[in-house]
Amino acid sequence: MTVTTTPRPARNGVDVPTLFATLDAVKENPAIAAFQFRAQNTWQSGTHSRTVYSDFFGAMQEMQHREATVVESDHPEVLVGTDKAPTPVEYLLHAIAACVTSGVVNIASARGVTLTKVSSTVVGNIDLRGILGLSDQVRNGYQGITVSFEIECDADEETLRGIVEQSRRRSAVYDVLTNGTTVRIDVAARQAA
Amino acid sequence: MTVTTTPRPARNGVDVPTLFATLDAVKENPAIAAFQFRAQNTWQSGTHSRTVYSDFFGAMQEMQHREATVVESDHPEVLVGTDKAPTPVEYLLHAIAACVTSGVVNIASARGVTLTKVSSTVVGNIDLRGILGLSDQVRNGYQGITVSFEIECDADEETLRGIVEQSRRRSAVYDVLTNGTTVRIDVAARQAA
Repeated sequence: MTVTTTPRPARNGVDVPTLFATLDAVKENPAIAAFQFRAQNTWQSGTHSRTVYSDFFGAMQEMQHREATVVESDHPEVLVGTDKAPTPVEYLLHAIAACVTSGVVNIASARGVTLTKVSSTVVGNIDLRGILGLSDQVRNGYQGITVSFEIECDADEETLRGIVEQSRRRSAVYDVLTNGTTVRIDVAARQAA
Repeated sequence: MTVTTTPRPARNGVDVPTLFATLDAVKENPAIAAFQFRAQNTWQSGTHSRTVYSDFFGAMQEMQHREATVVESDHPEVLVGTDKAPTPVEYLLHAIAACVTSGVVNIASARGVTLTKVSSTVVGNIDLRGILGLSDQVRNGYQGITVSFEIECDADEETLRGIVEQSRRRSAVYDVLTNGTTVRIDVAARQAA
């Protein structure tokens, strides 16, 4: 008999034993779970701005991402921007797709399901009369968002649907986008000389 | 007397006459205001996924961004990811900063205020016991988000605060993040042979 030891067993690229060990660690010490994510935005010109992500707080310590990431937003030319980057609302679409996808992969891995494809198309419909101040009947934000997944795996459809449903139930972005959260805006103003 | 004609007058990089002309065009034909934004996400490995933005619908036609943009998400190593990119929830922080900033710049420009600096730091606090399924008392998403702006302009503080407040009132991302919207998740499943 040959015994194969796998020091870092993984399924779908997820280190499942470490995932369960992390759950146990948080159960023992809930303070580990208090995270603060951060972003630094700087206006460039017109509707164009740039955000840098570098550090965050978590697991009871200041942490750095392996690399800083820069993302940008602008308005399209048809909305009098310069279209140097996607609009701010388009980033909400990435956030929901990425969050549910990572949940699907973690949960599938924990349940012993091997995935061969997870892709999604996200659409958000918005009536700009809201933000343009042209109608009191129209909200500013998306009227609705739809995420359409295509998933291929070695499990049957019912098992897969259970995985997606569990990911939705545990998604941080789904919670914020559907239930909302508090957003406080502070301003430090300085009049130029 | 010298008459100076400015074919494309701008303040803060915003073409104010075209901004007002756009408002007039939407007033005359509200169908122009129906937009659909889109994102295509593809799972890479583990919690790492990649989104491409290329097209959208607006002003009664299919439109393309000048260039496609790719953004990625992952989980940090402390959460058993590979930290190849910011987490999905961090993109919500960019979205709110970029949205309110572009609004501030458009509104300031329309009101004749010249800006010399707009920067913001966004923080979002989250207790991961929610998404880890370790507490029913803890929500999955951010407990709250704070955007701290530093703005320098040629107007007095009261005028500037009025501009920021109007931007908040008309922000699409602020509306979605504070009031929520509907998110529908569809799944097309395929069992690998």
